[in-house]
Amino acid sequence: MTAADTTHFLCTIEDGIATVRLDRPERKNPLTFESYAELRDWFRDLAYSDDVKAVVFASNGGNFSSGGDVHDIIGPLTRMNMKELLAFTRMTGDLVKSMVNCGKPVIAAIDGICVGAGAIIAMASDLRIATPQARVAFLFTRVGLAGCDMGACAVLPRIIGQGRAAELLYTGRSMSADEGHAWGFHNRLVEADRLEADARALAAQLVAGPNFGHMMTKTMLAQEWSMSIEQAIEAEAQAQAICMQTGDFERAYRAFVAKQTPVFEGD
Amino acid sequence: MTAADTTHFLCTIEDGIATVRLDRPERKNPLTFESYAELRDWFRDLAYSDDVKAVVFASNGGNFSSGGDVHDIIGPLTRMNMKELLAFTRMTGDLVKSMVNCGKPVIAAIDGICVGAGAIIAMASDLRIATPQARVAFLFTRVGLAGCDMGACAVLPRIIGQGRAAELLYTGRSMSADEGHAWGFHNRLVEADRLEADARALAAQLVAGPNFGHMMTKTMLAQEWSMSIEQAIEAEAQAQAICMQTGDFERAYRAFVAKQTPVFEGD
Amino acid sequence: MTAADTTHFLCTIEDGIATVRLDRPERKNPLTFESYAELRDWFRDLAYSDDVKAVVFASNGGNFSSGGDVHDIIGPLTRMNMKELLAFTRMTGDLVKSMVNCGKPVIAAIDGICVGAGAIIAMASDLRIATPQARVAFLFTRVGLAGCDMGACAVLPRIIGQGRAAELLYTGRSMSADEGHAWGFHNRLVEADRLEADARALAAQLVAGPNFGHMMTKTMLAQEWSMSIEQAIEAEAQAQAICMQTGDFERAYRAFVAKQTPVFEGD
Repeated sequence: MTAADTTHFLCTIEDGIATVRLDRPERKNPLTFESYAELRDWFRDLAYSDDVKAVVFASNGGNFSSGGDVHDIIGPLTRMNMKELLAFTRMTGDLVKSMVNCGKPVIAAIDGICVGAGAIIAMASDLRIATPQARVAFLFTRVGLAGCDMGACAVLPRIIGQGRAAELLYTGRSMSADEGHAWGFHNRLVEADRLEADARALAAQLVAGPNFGHMMTKTMLAQEWSMSIEQAIEAEAQAQAICMQTGDFERAYRAFVAKQTPVFEGD
Repeated sequence: MTAADTTHFLCTIEDGIATVRLDRPERKNPLTFESYAELRDWFRDLAYSDDVKAVVFASNGGNFSSGGDVHDIIGPLTRMNMKELLAFTRMTGDLVKSMVNCGKPVIAAIDGICVGAGAIIAMASDLRIATPQARVAFLFTRVGLAGCDMGACAVLPRIIGQGRAAELLYTGRSMSADEGHAWGFHNRLVEADRLEADARALAAQLVAGPNFGHMMTKTMLAQEWSMSIEQAIEAEAQAQAICMQTGDFERAYRAFVAKQTPVFEGD
Repeated sequence: MTAADTTHFLCTIEDGIATVRLDRPERKNPLTFESYAELRDWFRDLAYSDDVKAVVFASNGGNFSSGGDVHDIIGPLTRMNMKELLAFTRMTGDLVKSMVNCGKPVIAAIDGICVGAGAIIAMASDLRIATPQARVAFLFTRVGLAGCDMGACAVLPRIIGQGRAAELLYTGRSMSADEGHAWGFHNRLVEADRLEADARALAAQLVAGPNFGHMMTKTMLAQEWSMSIEQAIEAEAQAQAICMQTGDFERAYRAFVAKQTPVFEGD
């Protein structure tokens, strides 16, 4: 994967970190049919990439994303038939699935407006760093729809709890940065001028490995969602046994014995 | 549905909001066999009502509910056989099911004592506003029973987390209003003299719509409970596609283009 | 069960409370193959014991546990084949299963270092009391492995939320005592000189009963994990009906009528 691959969003790749951002800052970075599809395909391809080991989904021009564009997306949707509508909602859902299944940690770096599908992208990331100006809103109800968009009724309650998620999804109101931090949505708040550097530093920490282990952590965090406790424990017994045959496990042990810091290689 | 329908609890209906309250304030509003059954039936009927678009489950005389009455319920239960006991526990469970499946947002307005089955009714509501005097206790253990009553071991952990839920369910201790707010049980704390007005204002905001969307949000918040992430995303793709064929979606779009506030009609 | 039964960890039994602790304080109480296996067997036997009604998993010498010993466990694991590795990860998972299925509330009393498998034991307990010095870290990633160990990717998100759990499991960083309390991992913080007394007082409160009810609370908290809401409500209707035929339910009712404190007998 190279940075040159993308047409409808910006992507740079450096030191194993892909930095992705929407690129219509003058309109607060709305999504379009084209950027949805390209992001979905890009995250799908990411599952097979060894060059990228972590993703920073960054803001642009002081905002994360204003979500589905009213003119480019909502207008056309009001004129679609059911077959076309379902194709659209499945495409947006496929973006979340591809993020969940890409095998690499995704860190959202959230400044300013982060609403609608933008809030969903933040939610579908593994970790979230936000500025005090971050305003996250699941505002589907404001455009006459339900809160159940791209997995929100399943995922958001597991991040912030069922009662808080219900309030955000019914009312569409903004979650402030302080609320988001207190509720466990944002892992950390930092000032805007530190946002991207902090997100990249966290990404670099993860890129340092063990990347096979991180892939398995991400896989199991999603996979065990609807398992019983007993099933989850057996699933982890298998997953961790696999990880115990990686070189990184042995590298960590040897480094410990030698009183050194382990250098992971991702296999 | 009209306010005249109920015998064992109070119900008024105004502007699409049903305000429901138990009515033995001198005993802190205990539940009886009759009020359990009537509430269950009322919430079941609510699923088919177009007149009521949101419910406020209110307090009365400074208290929400003292739960199952010791004399009217617990005494008789100690003399029942298993067939009768299971019929009772299924009836109480059916009240929670009927609240979950009624298709309208339910807002609990909690003042004072809110314990036992009263705490369950608050838990089974979608949103909770409480006063600083609210004391919520899942005190089944205090009457010699288990914490698993009417769904508490499944629902409470999803609202406040597994560790806090375990403490409340094992010990039966009161959760203070501040704890309830910090833990995400209460969405908001307000002074007692503002409680019902605030709850009604929130209900009115939801009644303004989109009500078909709200019904779908409520449905999916419950429906996706035990789905995998992938199943949940597909379920939401279908649910939201349905909502995209409602008039309210188009009304929102037209209002946006005309720079007006949308007026939703619920279909 | 008697205190004399154990070889690889300390166990005292008094007033229905078993106090368990690892016993290599000079190395911060690491686990070994032998202590894993013995703890697993001990918790399995506990399911059938009437002498022990609650467990305090205590610290020793200012620390809870440093997890799997690097020399005694990690070294040998790097030389095992897949059959042996899976036997090991299943054994550790079986310890969590046996704790979850033992039928008695387990209270972790956490001081100092509580990392790796030690953090898992704390997580698998029902309740957690910690000192301000408690440092909990799921540091599997630091030894080249994945965060999915002994059920962590399933259980930790349900205690502290998906976003915070993801951060701890990806980075392996320590959760401070204040974070653990704010996030709902620790039920309470107390000073080190009060830790064990407080944990025992809470255990004594639970031992006072109703113990059949507590067993059912614990069972259902685990059992309903992956049920739908409707299934959970039916499961609780059955479980609570069973509890309504216990003597403790009648004892509580009689005590209430006589304006006395109930004395529970656990049947």
